[in-house]
Amino acid sequence: MSNNGGLPAFPFSLEATDGRARVGRLETPHGAVTTPCFMPVGTKGTVKGMLPTDLERLGAQIILANTYHLALRPGSAVVRDLGGLHRFMGWEGPILTDSGGFQVFSLLDTADVQDEGVAFRSVYDGSRHLFTPERAIAEQQALGADFIMCFDECPPATRDRSLVERAVLRTTDWARRCREAHLGAGGQGAGGPQMLLGIVQGGTFADLRRRSAEALLEIDFPGYAVGGLSVGEDRESMLQSTKSTVDLLPWERIRYFMGIGDPIGIMDMIALGVDLFDCVLPTRVARMGTAFTKEGRLNLRNARFKADPDPLEDDCDCTACRSFSRGAIRHFVSQKEMLGAQLLTEHNLRHLFRLVDGAREAIRERRFGEYRRSVSAGW
Amino acid sequence: MSNNGGLPAFPFSLEATDGRARVGRLETPHGAVTTPCFMPVGTKGTVKGMLPTDLERLGAQIILANTYHLALRPGSAVVRDLGGLHRFMGWEGPILTDSGGFQVFSLLDTADVQDEGVAFRSVYDGSRHLFTPERAIAEQQALGADFIMCFDECPPATRDRSLVERAVLRTTDWARRCREAHLGAGGQGAGGPQMLLGIVQGGTFADLRRRSAEALLEIDFPGYAVGGLSVGEDRESMLQSTKSTVDLLPWERIRYFMGIGDPIGIMDMIALGVDLFDCVLPTRVARMGTAFTKEGRLNLRNARFKADPDPLEDDCDCTACRSFSRGAIRHFVSQKEMLGAQLLTEHNLRHLFRLVDGAREAIRERRFGEYRRSVSAGW
Repeated sequence: MSNNGGLPAFPFSLEATDGRARVGRLETPHGAVTTPCFMPVGTKGTVKGMLPTDLERLGAQIILANTYHLALRPGSAVVRDLGGLHRFMGWEGPILTDSGGFQVFSLLDTADVQDEGVAFRSVYDGSRHLFTPERAIAEQQALGADFIMCFDECPPATRDRSLVERAVLRTTDWARRCREAHLGAGGQGAGGPQMLLGIVQGGTFADLRRRSAEALLEIDFPGYAVGGLSVGEDRESMLQSTKSTVDLLPWERIRYFMGIGDPIGIMDMIALGVDLFDCVLPTRVARMGTAFTKEGRLNLRNARFKADPDPLEDDCDCTACRSFSRGAIRHFVSQKEMLGAQLLTEHNLRHLFRLVDGAREAIRERRFGEYRRSVSAGW
Repeated sequence: MSNNGGLPAFPFSLEATDGRARVGRLETPHGAVTTPCFMPVGTKGTVKGMLPTDLERLGAQIILANTYHLALRPGSAVVRDLGGLHRFMGWEGPILTDSGGFQVFSLLDTADVQDEGVAFRSVYDGSRHLFTPERAIAEQQALGADFIMCFDECPPATRDRSLVERAVLRTTDWARRCREAHLGAGGQGAGGPQMLLGIVQGGTFADLRRRSAEALLEIDFPGYAVGGLSVGEDRESMLQSTKSTVDLLPWERIRYFMGIGDPIGIMDMIALGVDLFDCVLPTRVARMGTAFTKEGRLNLRNARFKADPDPLEDDCDCTACRSFSRGAIRHFVSQKEMLGAQLLTEHNLRHLFRLVDGAREAIRERRFGEYRRSVSAGW
């Protein structure tokens, strides 16, 4: 493990590139991650409907959990005392926790944001809490993920420039405090070293993005995330803002785009040189009856699938496609049987993992542009 | 496959006995079943929360599905056209369907019972349906399970003698009609030969049980079930009625007790010489947060488990016990995450499978009485 001014930095090496797109290898204390990599989200400590062994079988390399939720239920100290987040989730591979910032700002209209931190009421019981940068780091240290995130202010990307500008300043200040707090603990969580990533904010304002990125680069993090996008702005603005941000980041460090999970968006991100991405989309739409396929989305609630004997996709090797007809899946979805959600979740994740596997292969063979076009053509 | 006056009879051979208790082997077109055997229930075509591969891994040998539900949603003809029940459920092992009788009588106060059959309204949309013995067989033939059941009248075991007596007479008549209907199709379902079991009724009235059993024996079935018990009567009456019924049945044919799933009840049934049994109990209580253990039931909703780092059971090899603490499982159950139900369902099924594995071993070693006492001692 290398070292970033005292902060743990897990070894990251680039193995192949094709334009901005890159294949890398990230060595964590819980195993290696080959990038680009889609990270499934286990909000409350579980990717809904999936056993950890299912995730491993499907090809998941690293999964997420949400600090906001786990800090409130069952409590980060409880998770720590139960043996840490890996033991809690039954997942021996790498884990990343967000800082809670996004939830604090998106789940609650009542959040009171001050320079000190954010006061808010729990969605669980209405109790009052104050999340500061220091507390966000302490919670994440107690949880014990491999990757932890700076606490940031996340205004909607399309809000007034003045609000976004204030969020950038605050996020910069909080990033400094997060770094200090983590350094103060020797970069260690309850279960070992944790790599802390900075988050670039700035909405869709190019100059604010630049200001945020430059300030974070000066503070110096072993890796960087692009935050505050994919929250309602148009796709073109999102890509433009991501591009200008990523191009400011150091080539040799890991880049994480927060919140993208549709096949085209994932291809876009890979094309821009993003290494990690996550989203609840594939698992959430699965629970609503939607399957990802090469030809776009299938809504299995549709009556036309009632007697359809075909699998979701011909060449997919997931449990849904190997063992079930569309008609059967439609039945389980219609009847709200857990199996419907389980099968579609498994399928959507497997679909994305295969898609990203293909992207890595294409980058290695310097034909990523063509691969990306072929993926987009179906959607 | 042997033959029972034209009805398919899958080979059943006894391998060991200890008193009334017996170990047998039943060869079905979808693989062998070693008895005694607990059969998980997949009411609507899925054992809730379990992938078929999970069931196989846990040691499930044969699973159930409910004709009432599948005939109404998605319809037996739809299941047939989708490739039959095995394909529909993604399960390549043996399957047993009930006849729909139990649901017709238990789900609906509005069922109108005549000698012809039962008129009722669907729980799904209120539509009117008539289930006759002939229709129950036709539905089960379309579904295509390996084992199918006669359509029977199931009054509560404790009802008036006159009602139970009428139910016995009707069940006898219906059994004859079911046999005729199945013979008329050459004993074949949509997917191949199906073994039809008769169901002994008679509540807790010894003479009615005898009358029912003798009448069914005269009609002649390749195997017999004990029905209409475990529906509210006291345990002692249930066991006494089962004992007197089973002792009337041919030693060399399969015996199935309908609806028992608690560890002590299962031991009682095995002691009486029952080969097959099923119940939603272990899977239903799992979804409510209850785990079976050697020391009895654990209610994981209880706050005392919040910070409990131990597994549900020390020596269990299920996913829940191998990978999760009680504290984590309590969290998932409290948060109504699917994983809580998945883990407890897996555990309870594995617990029962191991329990019955142990019973078979004990019978082979002629120490079943001792084994049964040791199981009961914990509860």
